[in-house]
Amino acid sequence: MSQVISVQRDVSADARHKADDFRRMMTRQGTLVVNLMSSPGAGKTSLLSATARRFGSPARIGILVGDIATDRDAQRLAHLAPTVQLTTGGACHLELPLVQRGWEALATHEVDFLFIENVGNLVCPASHDLGEHRRVVMLSTTEGDDKPAKYPKAFRTSGALVISKLDLLPHVPFSVDAAIADARATQPKLAVFPLSVLCGDGIEAWCDYLLEERRKLLTAGVEAVHA
Amino acid sequence: MSQVISVQRDVSADARHKADDFRRMMTRQGTLVVNLMSSPGAGKTSLLSATARRFGSPARIGILVGDIATDRDAQRLAHLAPTVQLTTGGACHLELPLVQRGWEALATHEVDFLFIENVGNLVCPASHDLGEHRRVVMLSTTEGDDKPAKYPKAFRTSGALVISKLDLLPHVPFSVDAAIADARATQPKLAVFPLSVLCGDGIEAWCDYLLEERRKLLTAGVEAVHA
Repeated sequence: MSQVISVQRDVSADARHKADDFRRMMTRQGTLVVNLMSSPGAGKTSLLSATARRFGSPARIGILVGDIATDRDAQRLAHLAPTVQLTTGGACHLELPLVQRGWEALATHEVDFLFIENVGNLVCPASHDLGEHRRVVMLSTTEGDDKPAKYPKAFRTSGALVISKLDLLPHVPFSVDAAIADARATQPKLAVFPLSVLCGDGIEAWCDYLLEERRKLLTAGVEAVHA
Repeated sequence: MSQVISVQRDVSADARHKADDFRRMMTRQGTLVVNLMSSPGAGKTSLLSATARRFGSPARIGILVGDIATDRDAQRLAHLAPTVQLTTGGACHLELPLVQRGWEALATHEVDFLFIENVGNLVCPASHDLGEHRRVVMLSTTEGDDKPAKYPKAFRTSGALVISKLDLLPHVPFSVDAAIADARATQPKLAVFPLSVLCGDGIEAWCDYLLEERRKLLTAGVEAVHA
C-alpha cells in the first residue's frame, strides 16, 4: 500500500487568473478565441473546415485541435489554416497550459480568430476555462434531441449552440425545436445555429455570428459567458 | 485561498479488489454483468430496449442506467425490465459504489444479465472497473470510422464492439471495414457486432453473443477483459 500526503492550494482560482490573463492578451491583439465542444463525431473538424473555406484566403484563422491520440484532425485542417495538434495522451479534455503551448507553436499570431477544437466529450471540457471569449457547444441531429438536459453543463456554460448534420433530419428522430427548447431551459441566452456542413445550409449565419462577436471584441471587449 | 491537506491511500488497488469481489458475487449467482460504454447518443438505451424485447418476457434482465442528470433513459426502459436510474450529479462516468447501490435497489436479483449503461462518454468510463464480466463499446456510424484510433482506451479495454445505426450507412461517410480494422489494431480480440436497432439487423447475433458469454460464465467463469 502506498501513501501520499499532498498539500493542495486553491488551484481553481489560480487557473482562473491564468485564463483571464490569456483572454486579456488575446483581446488586446484583437483575436477572438472560440472553444468548440461536443461529443465525438458531432462534426467539429468539419465545421472548422467549412468555416475556414467560407472566410476564404488569407483567412487569418489559427486552429488548435485537441485529441487523446493521433493527429488526424490536424491533417484534415492544415491545408486550410495554420493548425497545431494538441495530443492529451489520455486526458479527457484540454487545459490552459496545453492551449498556451499550442498558441506559441502556431506558425503565425496574426489571426482574427483562434479556434480551439476540444477533445470529443460532452462532459469534462465544460469544467475547464481555456481563456476563450466564446464557448460553443455542438450537438448533431444523430445524437438525439434529449442531450441538453442530460449533459447540462456544456450547454449552461456556452454562448452558442451549433446543431449539426441537419441533412440527416429525414432519417433520424430529432426535433430541432425540442433540442433548442431543452438547451434554452438550461441557458436562455444561447445563440443557436442549425446547419449542415454537407449542404452548406446555415454556414453563412454561423460565420456572420463569428464576425459580429469579433466586432464586439474590437469595440468594447467581450465578456466570457461561462461559470 | 483555501488549503486542503489530504491523506490518500492506494485507492486504485482498493477499488480493484472491490470490483473483483462484486464480479465474483455476480459470477456465483450466474448473472452476467455487461458494462456498455459509448459517446452520447450512440444508441445505448435503444440497444438495451431491443435486447430486452428480443429476450422476451420474462426476460430475466436487470438494467442500471447512468446519467449526469434526468431519469429519461430509465423511463424508456422501465416497462421492459427492472431498471434503476443512477444519476451522477455531474460526474462524467460511473463508479462501483453507485453501481452497487443501484444493484441493491433493483426490484429483483433473479436476473441472468445485469446491463450497466454508462454515462455517454467515450473517454472517462474506460478507466473505471464496475465489476463487469464484459465491457462493450458502441460506435455509431454517424460518429465516423476514425474514432477507435482517436479514443483508444475504450476500445482496448473492451471485449466487444457494437457498431450501431447501420441503417444510416447510405447517408454518412463511414466504412465498417475501416472502423473494425482501426478497432482491432487497438484490441485484436474484439468481437464485433454491426447492427441497426431500427431495422433489427444484427440484433440476433448480438443476443446470441450475450447468451454464449453467459453460458461460459456458468460453465467455467468468465475472465474480465480489461486493464
